[in-house]
Amino acid sequence: MEQRTQRRLEVWIEYASTYSYLTVSCIGSLAAQREVELDWQPFWLGPVRERGLGAPFPDDAPRSRYMWRDVERRAARLGLPYRKPEQYPVNSLQTARVALVAAREGWCLPFSEKVFSLHWGQGVLIGTPDNLRTALQALGKDVDEVIERAQSADNKAAFKAQTERALERGIFGAPSFVTCDGELFWGDDRLEDALDWACTCVEPR
Amino acid sequence: MEQRTQRRLEVWIEYASTYSYLTVSCIGSLAAQREVELDWQPFWLGPVRERGLGAPFPDDAPRSRYMWRDVERRAARLGLPYRKPEQYPVNSLQTARVALVAAREGWCLPFSEKVFSLHWGQGVLIGTPDNLRTALQALGKDVDEVIERAQSADNKAAFKAQTERALERGIFGAPSFVTCDGELFWGDDRLEDALDWACTCVEPR
Repeated sequence: MEQRTQRRLEVWIEYASTYSYLTVSCIGSLAAQREVELDWQPFWLGPVRERGLGAPFPDDAPRSRYMWRDVERRAARLGLPYRKPEQYPVNSLQTARVALVAAREGWCLPFSEKVFSLHWGQGVLIGTPDNLRTALQALGKDVDEVIERAQSADNKAAFKAQTERALERGIFGAPSFVTCDGELFWGDDRLEDALDWACTCVEPR
Repeated sequence: MEQRTQRRLEVWIEYASTYSYLTVSCIGSLAAQREVELDWQPFWLGPVRERGLGAPFPDDAPRSRYMWRDVERRAARLGLPYRKPEQYPVNSLQTARVALVAAREGWCLPFSEKVFSLHWGQGVLIGTPDNLRTALQALGKDVDEVIERAQSADNKAAFKAQTERALERGIFGAPSFVTCDGELFWGDDRLEDALDWACTCVEPR
């Protein structure tokens, strides 16, 4: 069987996920250093959890308190702005549908950077029209036209199919990364492991 | 207020925890490099979860599959033996009580290394008399005498108190690390963050 090395990494991103902010802030340069091509896969974690786990996570105050503090410390380590969002979780559906359009057209990284930076740095929350429109404007997009395409039946169906694809890969959280040989890595703290794996993995042709 | 720098880190370790194996394998040298003193805090996660979270985690097949694969990959990255234990979770109570004796007497690290290495490298499971006795023998201990002390009423009470102390610190998983200023770090993948924090944190006197 002929084989080829694929320096490619699927990036499963959820715009309501706190740790996805950290990932988006570094993945561009870390992937470029290793010459890994990023294959953006925006999705919605809610239906994946419901289908995959049977139930959402229980209310869990110590873990929740810890998560915020951990994100704050990790953001500081990366030199990123941190301002605890006034709402959590946010409704990430429309942003994620736009991101799927962006992924097809190759501008998902700058779009994600802008969306998260507005949310975490300026208090313009993901899920608000202000966040989405400002991000699209900053990228020089025709705002109404992009949103219309994101809301089209075709794109809605494609986005819905992301749930099945996520479940097929065994995904249960975000961000997650999948290499060409099917290895799953979960969490911002596995980003470098995933990129390193992507440098060496081989896909059967 | 006078202040002093404490290079000290509480290490909350659970012998039924898979990721604690990875931590035990590297924490000695990583702490020595930074001149951080380790304050071993063996505990039992079961009662902490019951008290802190209200309910155990739901059965979660994708996450469980992922955990084993993640531990295997991380062990390979560290050059550690990996042989999936035949039983999971194991009953870590007696081992943890002995570890509390070891922590008081300053031999908790070599004890933990031996216990985990038998479990992961040789299939001699934690929770079996064979694992505990072999580890104690390897350290040149009087096996029966140590086990008797571990089972004493005083040590049982001290071990039970670890649950309260863990809850006070907001602990919900293992391994966890707490710095002298009360910062909590959870998980083997936060070990270096925790050690770095311990190098700079200041405790009010």
